Amino acid sequence: MQTKIGVGLLGLGTVGAGVANILLTPDSRHPLVSEIQIIRVAVRDLNRPRSVEIERNILTTNPQEVVDDPNVQVVVEMMGGIEPARTLIMRAISSGKSVVTANKALIARHGEEIAIAAAAAGVYVLIEAAVGGGIPIIEPLKQSLGGNRITKVSGIINGTTNYILSRMSQEEIGYEEVLQTAKELGYAESDPTADVEGLDAADKIAILSNLAFGGPINRSAIPTEGIAQLQRRDVDFAKQLGYVIKLVAIAERTTLSKQQEKSLPVAVHVRPTLIPLTHPLAGVNGVNNAILIEGDPIGEVMFFGPGAGSGPTASAVVADILNIAGIYQVMHSGGDLDPLLAANSWRDCHLVNQSEICQKNYVRFTAQDTPGVIGRIGSHFGDREVSIQSIVQFNASDQGAEIVVITHKVRQNQMQKALEAIKALPEIKELVSHLGCL
Amino acid sequence: MQTKIGVGLLGLGTVGAGVANILLTPDSRHPLVSEIQIIRVAVRDLNRPRSVEIERNILTTNPQEVVDDPNVQVVVEMMGGIEPARTLIMRAISSGKSVVTANKALIARHGEEIAIAAAAAGVYVLIEAAVGGGIPIIEPLKQSLGGNRITKVSGIINGTTNYILSRMSQEEIGYEEVLQTAKELGYAESDPTADVEGLDAADKIAILSNLAFGGPINRSAIPTEGIAQLQRRDVDFAKQLGYVIKLVAIAERTTLSKQQEKSLPVAVHVRPTLIPLTHPLAGVNGVNNAILIEGDPIGEVMFFGPGAGSGPTASAVVADILNIAGIYQVMHSGGDLDPLLAANSWRDCHLVNQSEICQKNYVRFTAQDTPGVIGRIGSHFGDREVSIQSIVQFNASDQGAEIVVITHKVRQNQMQKALEAIKALPEIKELVSHLGCL
Repeated sequence: MQTKIGVGLLGLGTVGAGVANILLTPDSRHPLVSEIQIIRVAVRDLNRPRSVEIERNILTTNPQEVVDDPNVQVVVEMMGGIEPARTLIMRAISSGKSVVTANKALIARHGEEIAIAAAAAGVYVLIEAAVGGGIPIIEPLKQSLGGNRITKVSGIINGTTNYILSRMSQEEIGYEEVLQTAKELGYAESDPTADVEGLDAADKIAILSNLAFGGPINRSAIPTEGIAQLQRRDVDFAKQLGYVIKLVAIAERTTLSKQQEKSLPVAVHVRPTLIPLTHPLAGVNGVNNAILIEGDPIGEVMFFGPGAGSGPTASAVVADILNIAGIYQVMHSGGDLDPLLAANSWRDCHLVNQSEICQKNYVRFTAQDTPGVIGRIGSHFGDREVSIQSIVQFNASDQGAEIVVITHKVRQNQMQKALEAIKALPEIKELVSHLGCL
Repeated sequence: MQTKIGVGLLGLGTVGAGVANILLTPDSRHPLVSEIQIIRVAVRDLNRPRSVEIERNILTTNPQEVVDDPNVQVVVEMMGGIEPARTLIMRAISSGKSVVTANKALIARHGEEIAIAAAAAGVYVLIEAAVGGGIPIIEPLKQSLGGNRITKVSGIINGTTNYILSRMSQEEIGYEEVLQTAKELGYAESDPTADVEGLDAADKIAILSNLAFGGPINRSAIPTEGIAQLQRRDVDFAKQLGYVIKLVAIAERTTLSKQQEKSLPVAVHVRPTLIPLTHPLAGVNGVNNAILIEGDPIGEVMFFGPGAGSGPTASAVVADILNIAGIYQVMHSGGDLDPLLAANSWRDCHLVNQSEICQKNYVRFTAQDTPGVIGRIGSHFGDREVSIQSIVQFNASDQGAEIVVITHKVRQNQMQKALEAIKALPEIKELVSHLGCL
């Protein structure tokens, strides 16, 4: 029997309480759970009633005490936000402690700095809960797909927006109304900006891109479009055409050359996107998430499950704690790290310019209902070598018509040029919507 | 830089060639791939032309030479079958070598014996490719879900039968005809027994059950029904009722008591099963596989991807090789094993009797089209406390009628009693089909 592994928790909110609850009730879980001991817990308010019984004398309002406790071998950060989380994590690392964190905003921005410090100190920083809630996705990417040349990672990785879009797609209900319900149900925060503007999804795809392609990209330069501007009408038209609209995040290598490039170009973006109903991501509804990974020789694998919630997130945090506890039984102090679990960057990557991103498009125009307008739209697309999958005219009347075009894959700069030309046509009133399409 | 990890391959068929191809072209894959060196390869025929270039002098027709080569640290068994695979694996283990194998039939039958030998020798036996082809499922179950109390593992884990059933569901085509096509396309073997009778799925669910619940069950006692007897008519009726028929394997703990039972009762079976179209497994078509894991607190996660094929399977085999190479950089000879990666049994489990399995049922009777027959069927089910979800009469005519009943969840012994009573009714001609239902 080993001596127990001491963990310190930073935060005892819903996820923290979920983690503590698992660690305090090890029966019928993996036996390694019973080898973990909670040493110290930082909370905001010592007197708040909690759903989990923690001995009063291990609570503290000073998170630094948790990090500095000599019996704490693993620091579990569940505070969120950039500071003081970043400083506490760096302090833990420099004291030779491994770290588990669910803090996607922090890792997306400072992941490389943290990883370099961890490698220098010979400790692990594990982040399974940062993406996909309870879904095992970070560790499978690190530990199960290394033989592949990954070509693309795409997915639905924000539960709040997926809840909103699922309800908008299934019911006759508007964006504002669903958002209100989502807040009441706890699926959206009172300030939902990070979710509905796509920022949370951009954090997560930045993390996945780093793991899939081996190097960090510039988080702040990821083209990101949220769902706040999405119109009910486009949800309906998409449905009539056999699609459902989801907020999709994509990271894709743009060259398949097998040569080791100096720096790998990666196209990363977050955007409301039409998904054909036959596509595996189309059936991902509510707060569920799903991540699709494509590579050679594996083909395509998908990971699906609850993208949020205290239980699933706690499951992911505990998985990380167990992985560290497991490797601690093997490694000798000062020895090497397991390179798969450590997952340090091994290649330079960079974002390609947004105009170079190649994707199918959905656009909707309002136009005068004159004969030949569809033909002229088609010609303008054709002239700029934008190949069209379908043009459909909806609601033609004296007030005009709505024309929906779905293109084949095309570079965004070409698409933009075609759209400029079409907007200049006298029959075209407005380019109302422009979304992605799988 | 570490010295390279030497591997020996037993078998250079399609999967073996796929593995060799990955290891020989490390560029743009995880850098650890380039730390692996193929030392020795056992083949049946030295002169057969191959899709991968292997130096002639490392080939041998004697697999024992591979196992005994002092530079081979990891033996990769891709021969299939019980013998000589088992003897070779045991010999590798007793020489202190770790083993990677895709041999589900062997692991389902002799996994415990092999695991005990591996633990004693301080080596790893990894089996990612044994279940779900390329889908990461074994390692996530071992390394990412240990904080959970797993309650159920279910899935579509045989690609051949799923290809056949998908085509039968999508086209007006009979079982024999699709099977013939499947053979021509290489999706079914010339003797398809292991696949179509459910034996392959039973091997795999035995392995998953062991990992999910912590202990082995008796493989040979798993109730197993294949698809060879499945009738086109039931596929059609299922469709009309909003279901699709798949070969589903299930392992479920039958008590949720948190007490550590002396031996955990587990219900395991393989059976053609109706799946509602809204269920995540319903959209899994062709040779794809999907595994659903339910537990507390994670809820439900699903892993989806290619269940067969040389590329995906090679991806899984290489993942195992990399995991061993990774841990070899950490562990010191004679030290402890990482308990998550080693995944030894930690609890006694046993199969519950088939009659105790609790499931929804689909049954189809042929009957005389007399008034009141549906009422009498309903009463007999009610008398045995079998609660009915729906009774539908199809094709009523002078020749009789077909009556399809879908029940709620019920123990199989209760179900059997009700069926015996109904079969004795004078109006009932025959109980034609009895399938499971999710």
